[in-house]
Amino acid sequence: MGSTAANGVVDKGVDFANYFCTYGFLYHQKEMLSDRIRMDAYYNAIFENKHHFQGKTVLDVGTGSGILAIWSAQAGARKVYAVEATKMAEHALELVKANKLQNVVEVIEGSMEDITLPEKVDVIISEWMGYFLLRESMLDSVICARDRWLNPNGVMYPSHARMWMAPIRSGLVDQKLSDYQGAVQDWRSFVDETKTFYGVDMSVLTNPFTEEQKKYYLQTSLWNNLHPDQIIGTSMVVKEIDCLTATVDDIRNVQASISSSITEENARFCGFGGWFDVHFRGSNKNPAEHEIELTTAPSEDSGTHWGQQVFLLHPPLRVQRGDDLILQFSMSRSKDNHRLMEVDLSCEMRQSGKLLPPFQKKFYIE
Amino acid sequence: MGSTAANGVVDKGVDFANYFCTYGFLYHQKEMLSDRIRMDAYYNAIFENKHHFQGKTVLDVGTGSGILAIWSAQAGARKVYAVEATKMAEHALELVKANKLQNVVEVIEGSMEDITLPEKVDVIISEWMGYFLLRESMLDSVICARDRWLNPNGVMYPSHARMWMAPIRSGLVDQKLSDYQGAVQDWRSFVDETKTFYGVDMSVLTNPFTEEQKKYYLQTSLWNNLHPDQIIGTSMVVKEIDCLTATVDDIRNVQASISSSITEENARFCGFGGWFDVHFRGSNKNPAEHEIELTTAPSEDSGTHWGQQVFLLHPPLRVQRGDDLILQFSMSRSKDNHRLMEVDLSCEMRQSGKLLPPFQKKFYIE
Ligand SMILES: Nc1ncnc2c1ncn2[C@@H]1O[C@H](CSCC[C@H](N)C(=O)O)[C@@H](O)[C@H]1O
Ligand SMILES: Nc1ncnc2c1ncn2[C@@H]1O[C@H](CSCC[C@H](N)C(=O)O)[C@@H](O)[C@H]1O
Repeated sequence: MGSTAANGVVDKGVDFANYFCTYGFLYHQKEMLSDRIRMDAYYNAIFENKHHFQGKTVLDVGTGSGILAIWSAQAGARKVYAVEATKMAEHALELVKANKLQNVVEVIEGSMEDITLPEKVDVIISEWMGYFLLRESMLDSVICARDRWLNPNGVMYPSHARMWMAPIRSGLVDQKLSDYQGAVQDWRSFVDETKTFYGVDMSVLTNPFTEEQKKYYLQTSLWNNLHPDQIIGTSMVVKEIDCLTATVDDIRNVQASISSSITEENARFCGFGGWFDVHFRGSNKNPAEHEIELTTAPSEDSGTHWGQQVFLLHPPLRVQRGDDLILQFSMSRSKDNHRLMEVDLSCEMRQSGKLLPPFQKKFYIE
Repeated sequence: MGSTAANGVVDKGVDFANYFCTYGFLYHQKEMLSDRIRMDAYYNAIFENKHHFQGKTVLDVGTGSGILAIWSAQAGARKVYAVEATKMAEHALELVKANKLQNVVEVIEGSMEDITLPEKVDVIISEWMGYFLLRESMLDSVICARDRWLNPNGVMYPSHARMWMAPIRSGLVDQKLSDYQGAVQDWRSFVDETKTFYGVDMSVLTNPFTEEQKKYYLQTSLWNNLHPDQIIGTSMVVKEIDCLTATVDDIRNVQASISSSITEENARFCGFGGWFDVHFRGSNKNPAEHEIELTTAPSEDSGTHWGQQVFLLHPPLRVQRGDDLILQFSMSRSKDNHRLMEVDLSCEMRQSGKLLPPFQKKFYIE
């Protein structure tokens, strides 16, 4: 039983149990508020582009603690609508009052899809990005808000987003394989013991158990803080999104033909790292004075709370500088939960001019 | 948004997302199937009381992998109905076939509350026990099955259940307090930094954050494997349940006045351990030949996967041998999720004849 019925309609209660619930905790909001790279990007985007806010009407989609709404007001907005689906809205209201902005910021508790505003807005600001950009599918709610509430010349904060991938090396490939093998080994002793002590032959479940563990250990993408040194080839742009024009149909299935060249001598190709960046550029008619970038690419420093998503290859492959990877990338939403993703990769390699046979891999972003 | 609507009706989809989902994994079923104490108890209950099964009709409520249904069939049942709400039912069916029992065991995928059987049964067997016995509220489903499907002289497996509590000492009291203090300390730096770097005063959220963390670290009961040496007073029976006659009303709110005497010299009273046992005794009209007990009490060995639930007192108290604890215990279901519990304890102490003022504590079993 999932959050999405056969007709594609999302069950609200289930969506709350699976998704919104965590956002109701200050602990979780604090994690986001402590991500300095994230905070700096939004802070600078707003305060270095005050002309977008001064005297303007702003909508903050998913205000959480209220931080982006408060900054918008501090930057001079005339009116800010701060919409939040969870009980966190109550804390946002307290915060707004404590910062003496209750005349500007109006906190509205409810789903963006359900509520109505008394007017259209000049700016939509939102921090909607999930792991590998699209996990959580919250951009849907921002697009819905934009189509209903943004003025014709309005601007989106952020205005653009991109998904990236690059071939990597990673010790995780060995660790996960050994975890998986351990689980399968353990199952075999379990089958023996259950037969010996309890007279039941469980071996018919060995295949389904193995499949379940394979999915868990080998096919589920992992949160990881990659070091730039782990990248062994050129980075690929998987998808570009213009937040002013993108539709839900554009992002429901992401498909791309992309390629990368190996840049390291004799490297162990262990899989792919995936990340995203977003930009604050305003719009063509109403550009930013200072463009701001928020990137979650692998970095020497501690990075963002998003880290990167790692998709492992079992077994890893030996590659040489100059080898080419040609990748068919396809990402769609999981049938049972529209906020989780499934990724199909089909990868061909050209090694010293020779095309090797392609291999396929399926991954789950859980 | 919880699983229970204002009118007390449970939303099926939400219940699935919150509760049933984990039982759909073989990994989780295997954890239960690897609990030797649990397995031995059910195995012996069945095979040392074959007269209850031979030629009889059996219902297994929540068959999971199918293990109890298979044993019932191996012990000579004429017919076994094995009901399971999750997709695990498909694996149970495979297992039944692989063990050549498809003529006896009929696997039915569905909620016990929704399905119908073609006949009444002589035995209801089920492993419905959650942490501290009643977490998960699955006994409701067994009671519902009993009232609809058990023959007048039928027997329940298990037939009886008891909840226990005892005063304990535990280093967890210091660890959790220090975790909590760390989180609060961390929040203070966070408030300072957010003010300094981002111009927003978060101090109004200090109280709600502290409450949230207090609930998490200090008021949520903990899974723990207690050693018998950690028990510092006599054990108290909180509740006795006769599975043949108990109603949902009997278990929805558990209230008890109970008392314990400290048995240790100069001990640090850090809180309470809670556990349960169940018995397989058959019924008065149809008693077991060999009574079997399954206990999850603290033990020298590794114990069961249920461990014990620990309810910590902050601060711990110094107690002496012979001191008496008089406890008002009250447990009810949490408003948002009927499978989770809230416990209110009111505790008085008589120390060398003098009655100390009572103190109250609220706990959450999450
Ligand atoms: N459709 C929707 N309607 C209202 N709130 C939503 C929503 N989808 C997600 N949210 C909320 O959006 C928030 C995203 S997290 C970002 C919080 C805050 N803007 C910040 O930058 O710190 C969560 O609090 C979540 O509950
Ligand atoms: N109302 C209900 N209807 C059908 N199945 C239920 C149920 N409530 C709980 N269950 C199932 O009951 C099982 C409890 S776990 C016990 C599994 C098995 N009998 C064993 O002893 O190993 C889970 O698989 C759960 O999905």
